[in-house]
Amino acid sequence: MSLLVLGSVAFDDVRTPAGTRVRVLGGSATYFAWAASTLVRTDLVAAVGRDFPDEFMQLLRGRGIGLDGLVKMEDVDTFHWSGRYGEDLNVAQTNWVRLNVLGRWKPVVPRDLQARPFVFLANDSPANQIAALEQLGRPRLCLCDTRDLWISQDRAQLEQVLARTDGIVLNDGEARQLTGERNLIRAAGRLHRLGSRIAVIKKGEHGAFLSMEGRGFALPAYPVSEVVDPTGAGDSFAGGLMGWLARHGETDFKALKHAMLAGTITASFCVEDFSLDRLKSLAHAAFERRMNEFRQFLAL
Amino acid sequence: MSLLVLGSVAFDDVRTPAGTRVRVLGGSATYFAWAASTLVRTDLVAAVGRDFPDEFMQLLRGRGIGLDGLVKMEDVDTFHWSGRYGEDLNVAQTNWVRLNVLGRWKPVVPRDLQARPFVFLANDSPANQIAALEQLGRPRLCLCDTRDLWISQDRAQLEQVLARTDGIVLNDGEARQLTGERNLIRAAGRLHRLGSRIAVIKKGEHGAFLSMEGRGFALPAYPVSEVVDPTGAGDSFAGGLMGWLARHGETDFKALKHAMLAGTITASFCVEDFSLDRLKSLAHAAFERRMNEFRQFLAL
Repeated sequence: MSLLVLGSVAFDDVRTPAGTRVRVLGGSATYFAWAASTLVRTDLVAAVGRDFPDEFMQLLRGRGIGLDGLVKMEDVDTFHWSGRYGEDLNVAQTNWVRLNVLGRWKPVVPRDLQARPFVFLANDSPANQIAALEQLGRPRLCLCDTRDLWISQDRAQLEQVLARTDGIVLNDGEARQLTGERNLIRAAGRLHRLGSRIAVIKKGEHGAFLSMEGRGFALPAYPVSEVVDPTGAGDSFAGGLMGWLARHGETDFKALKHAMLAGTITASFCVEDFSLDRLKSLAHAAFERRMNEFRQFLAL
Repeated sequence: MSLLVLGSVAFDDVRTPAGTRVRVLGGSATYFAWAASTLVRTDLVAAVGRDFPDEFMQLLRGRGIGLDGLVKMEDVDTFHWSGRYGEDLNVAQTNWVRLNVLGRWKPVVPRDLQARPFVFLANDSPANQIAALEQLGRPRLCLCDTRDLWISQDRAQLEQVLARTDGIVLNDGEARQLTGERNLIRAAGRLHRLGSRIAVIKKGEHGAFLSMEGRGFALPAYPVSEVVDPTGAGDSFAGGLMGWLARHGETDFKALKHAMLAGTITASFCVEDFSLDRLKSLAHAAFERRMNEFRQFLAL
C-alpha cells in the first residue's frame, strides 16, 4: 500500500565532531520519504524555493519518490537550517533558521494523492497539518510528529491534530514537554488521553518505546560504533516504520513492533554519514543483513 | 553455587522528588547482597562502625546473608552518604560523604569464604579490591564495579583490577570516563583491551548493554511508572545478575543475557521505594511474574 508524507524539504548546514557540511539536502519529509521509499511507494507533499537545485530534484525523482505534491515557489528561497552537535550527539543546537518558503506555504494535496491509505504528518506547523488532514480521505493509518516550537506556541491546534490522527511519533524531550510528565510511561499515558491511540517515543541512542492499546514494547538502538551526523535520524526512523507498515498493509500491535525494528535499522544507517549520503548508497541486501543482525542482538 | 560480595555497607540520607529519608540502610554491598540473596546463598565482606544498629544487623541476618566477613570496628562510625536526586532521576548529587570506617578498613576474607566460585567486587577502592583478590582462590567468575573517584584518582590500581577479573559492571558515565570514548560500543571495546572479557554497561532508565567475546546484547529497562528512589538500582542490578549466574552455575554469553534480565527486574523493584523497602517485601512470585511480563514486553 502506498504512503504519503507532509513535511519540510530543506537545505541543512551542519557541524558535528566528524566534520562540516553546507547546503546539503535535508528536511523532515526528505529524510522520511527517502527512508520509506526503500520499502514502499512514497509521495511527498512539501514546498521548496526558487534556489532549490535541479540536481536535488533529480535525486528525489531518481529514487522514485512521488513529486506531484512538491511545490516550487518562485518568489522565495528554500527553508534553510543551520545547526551543530557537540560530543553529546543526542542533542542538536540550532545556529539559525531561515523559514523562507515555510513562512508562507499552505499545503495542497493533489487529488490523486488524497486517498493514500498510509499518511505521515512529519514536523510542520499544526495549522499545515490540519490543512492537510482536511484534504485527505480517511487514511487507514495516520501518524504525526511535532517539535518544541509548536508545543510551546501552538498547543491548541496541536491538540486538534492529536485528536484527529491515530498516533504520534516524537522524541523523548518533546514527549516530556507536551505532557509535562518526565516518566515516559506516564507521558505515553497522557498522549493516549490526548487522543493518540499509538504513541512511539524515540530516545535517540537509547532506542524507542511504543505504547498502544494497554501494551508496551521497547527497543534499544542498533549499536552504531561511529555516529557521523545524527540529523534526520528521527525522520528516517519514522520513514522506516511507516514504510514497513505500508508495505505489509498492517497496523496492529505486532506490526508496529516489527515496524519499529525497521525504523531503528533505517536510522542506524542514516547517522553513519552526512545528509542522505549513507541512505543513498544503501542496498536492500545490506538493510536485510542488519535487520537479521539486530534480531540476533536482541535475542535472549 | 554460592556468591561472595565485597563492598560498602552504609547509612544513606536521601532526598528525591518523592520524599526524604535519613540514616536508612544502604551501601553497594548491602543492595547487592540483598538482591542476590533472593536467588542464591550470598556472603558479605564489608565493614560497619560502632553506631551500626543491631536492628540492621538482624535484618541482614534474617535475610540469610552470610555475615562472617562483616567486620564491626568499635572505634569509628559507619560510612555515611548524603545525596539527592532532582527531576532527572538518572543522576545522583552528593551532598556530603563521611568515609568513617571506609577510610581505614582493609578487607579480610574469612578462610571459609576464600573459595567461593562467584565473586563480585562492588564499588570500593581498587586497593581494597586487590587486597580481596589476593585472598581469594581462582573464582569461576569474578566481576567488579568502580566509580568516578577511583577512575580519576587511582587508575593504575584500577587497571590491575581489570586485568585480574573476568569483567566489569559499571554505568555509562563511568564507562565513558574510564575509556575516554563517548560511544558505548567503542567504550566496551576499550574495556576489553583493558582486560575485561565481559563488559556490562548500565544506562539507568535506558537499560543496559553487554559486550562479550565479540558479541553484543542490549536490554531496555523495565518500564517503571513511578520511580521513588533510584539509590541502589545499579547495585541491585548487579546482585540480580550475579545471583542468577551463581544460582544456575553458568557463565557463558547466553547465561549473561538471562542474568541481565534478572538484574533489570531486581533493579525495577528496588527503585519503587526508598532504601531496601520494596526489596524487603518482595515475594518470589512477584519477581517471577514481572520477569514473565518483561519477556512479553520485549517479545517481537
